[in-house]
Amino acid sequence: MPVNPPELKPPLPVPGFRIGTASCGVKSPEQKGKRTDLTIISADVDCHTAGAFTQNRFRAACVDLGEQAIAEHGTAIRGIIANSGNANAGTGIKEESWARAMIESASAATGINPEKMLSASTGVIGTPFPIERIEDGMNEAATSLSDDHWQGAAEAIRTTDTFAKWTSRTVGAYTITGIAKGSGMIHPDMATMLSFIATDAPLSQAQLQPMLSAAVSQSFNSISVDGDTSTNDTVYLLSSGLGLGHDPLEDTAKFAAALTSLCIELAQMIVRDGEGVSKFVTIRISGAANSDQARNVGRCIAVSPLVKTAFAGSDANWGRIIGAAGNSGIDFDPDQVSLKADDIIMLEGGELHPDYRDEDGMAVFAQDEFTIALDLGMGEACATIWTGDLTHDYITINAEYRT
Amino acid sequence: MPVNPPELKPPLPVPGFRIGTASCGVKSPEQKGKRTDLTIISADVDCHTAGAFTQNRFRAACVDLGEQAIAEHGTAIRGIIANSGNANAGTGIKEESWARAMIESASAATGINPEKMLSASTGVIGTPFPIERIEDGMNEAATSLSDDHWQGAAEAIRTTDTFAKWTSRTVGAYTITGIAKGSGMIHPDMATMLSFIATDAPLSQAQLQPMLSAAVSQSFNSISVDGDTSTNDTVYLLSSGLGLGHDPLEDTAKFAAALTSLCIELAQMIVRDGEGVSKFVTIRISGAANSDQARNVGRCIAVSPLVKTAFAGSDANWGRIIGAAGNSGIDFDPDQVSLKADDIIMLEGGELHPDYRDEDGMAVFAQDEFTIALDLGMGEACATIWTGDLTHDYITINAEYRT
Repeated sequence: MPVNPPELKPPLPVPGFRIGTASCGVKSPEQKGKRTDLTIISADVDCHTAGAFTQNRFRAACVDLGEQAIAEHGTAIRGIIANSGNANAGTGIKEESWARAMIESASAATGINPEKMLSASTGVIGTPFPIERIEDGMNEAATSLSDDHWQGAAEAIRTTDTFAKWTSRTVGAYTITGIAKGSGMIHPDMATMLSFIATDAPLSQAQLQPMLSAAVSQSFNSISVDGDTSTNDTVYLLSSGLGLGHDPLEDTAKFAAALTSLCIELAQMIVRDGEGVSKFVTIRISGAANSDQARNVGRCIAVSPLVKTAFAGSDANWGRIIGAAGNSGIDFDPDQVSLKADDIIMLEGGELHPDYRDEDGMAVFAQDEFTIALDLGMGEACATIWTGDLTHDYITINAEYRT
Repeated sequence: MPVNPPELKPPLPVPGFRIGTASCGVKSPEQKGKRTDLTIISADVDCHTAGAFTQNRFRAACVDLGEQAIAEHGTAIRGIIANSGNANAGTGIKEESWARAMIESASAATGINPEKMLSASTGVIGTPFPIERIEDGMNEAATSLSDDHWQGAAEAIRTTDTFAKWTSRTVGAYTITGIAKGSGMIHPDMATMLSFIATDAPLSQAQLQPMLSAAVSQSFNSISVDGDTSTNDTVYLLSSGLGLGHDPLEDTAKFAAALTSLCIELAQMIVRDGEGVSKFVTIRISGAANSDQARNVGRCIAVSPLVKTAFAGSDANWGRIIGAAGNSGIDFDPDQVSLKADDIIMLEGGELHPDYRDEDGMAVFAQDEFTIALDLGMGEACATIWTGDLTHDYITINAEYRT
């Protein structure tokens, strides 16, 4: 059960992009016709493109191919082909040829130059990739291309996600629409996170890449932990530049802010849909010397099993929180630290606040959403991390089933 | 239920050391007389002393005082006073005076100069320290001093430990005896790890400290994770030098090896007694460029919730293991990696081994003890980490009770 999944408004079409889906039975032939698992995002024009990729040393072939395509044709990308149900990772010597075959198949069905096509796969790893079933479904996806099908794409890229994730923003006359999938948020280890974002704003690759990197850092890389990413994690941002009237985009900062806000909304959905998660917790670190430091302390708290089980047990165990912060390796002065749970002050100047009562902390932790705010008392930098709790359901999902 | 706790031989007395215990009802007055919770280790002569302390930024006052005492009187330490039931950590402005009062009380009862007395506390944090109850029990501990009471000390320092942990080694005519406590091994965050080790070998502080540091690195800091230590974690090594006949210790390397082996045995007992642990897993990393690198990769595997739940579920999910290794931030070549579970080869040269059958891997993971061996294919350095699995019992212990 996700934690307070948002009621989503329909995603906005983005001029220049059409989306098609198909049901191929990627995971098993029996699922053909029952759930969609193949998505084509087709651009009518060459798109300037930015990407963010897994930091894992083990990367699926599709990630390598995508990074290469952006390096070579980053101002002329024409589409994305994506499947769920099989990650085509750890599949041995055929992995790359299967990834190329999926691109070739999409190219044949859409007429897009395969060198300008990105690909992404998500699902089980180490299982042979059912390329024939995907090829069989490709025409169904190509013939269903429509500018109004973003929601269908958000459905089709799901694996264990309990709800489809999409959102849109407008910046002046321009639109940004993004979809995402991912639910293994407790540690996004092997639970692939994918997000595809399209806009019609006239921005160059040189503008898009730093904007996307900054947005990803504050969103998808601020849920639970950075660097702990799967073999296939990928975010793509494509710009058709086909904005209405081709207005120049005067305020790129406003666009960057909207992009970041969109990524944060999608990332929060992933946390809300985290495996076994029953609580949505915001961890705000302030008073750090720099933002990396703030993020590191936040992540140490967010990944601590003792902190996460305290969240699960509605136990306002501030000792575990400061213990996790103390283990971050960051050199702060414990006597300058203050800690709040929502508006309840727990610690001030490193000491238990005289007015703090355990039952007040417990009341905060009993909610299904709350904020932990830790000030390190050193500087002005801050960071926010979103995480969930660690529950019996997480153990059940991950110990009793192979994901 | 601990995983295969060893059948321990009685600990060997160490010339120059006497041990006394008492039951003070530290945790609650009702427990007075029911379980021991106060330990004095008294040395008949000035001891050369080494210490290893928590790396947590939040340290209890007793840790600071102990480090200071070794800095000032490290060639003349005369004893340790330790209690379980209350960590005297996070207890505010009285913390240091309570820690000093416990030392003063032990000093008054034993005649030892308080400046030469170390102290340690373990148990709940953030709860006022019941110094009066400890003072009331001090004479009971002092009057029970005996050279044959190490097992009693191992019992008295327990908190949630399900069995007492001790072991001994002999090196020529010399003896080493150590006791330890700790059971929150999944992440030794706030679950204090204490170990007190005594020897009669004639070794100077300058010899003891590097030996202890090296031994701790390969033992207590190689279970699950380094740096993730509690506010109170401490290891003390005292040498009375009172060896039989005062033989010179010719082979200090042999002593260092025995000390390391003793610490590893105690550390493994802590893993076996880990909260909710049902499996004891050895993670061997080889082929690393240096031992820090090997240890980092091993720790990343050992702390991954997805790996730990796969252990719990007897799921030979090698994808999670290589995924965790890939997230270590270490720059290795995935195509050079090989992975074994006991003697079953899973991966070789980054590829699934042609003879590997899932049921063979499953059979290894179904055991309550097994070894994962990952070779990075880069260099000659290696490291071994011991860890447990992540089970429903862990969640129950940590989410449903305040520890």
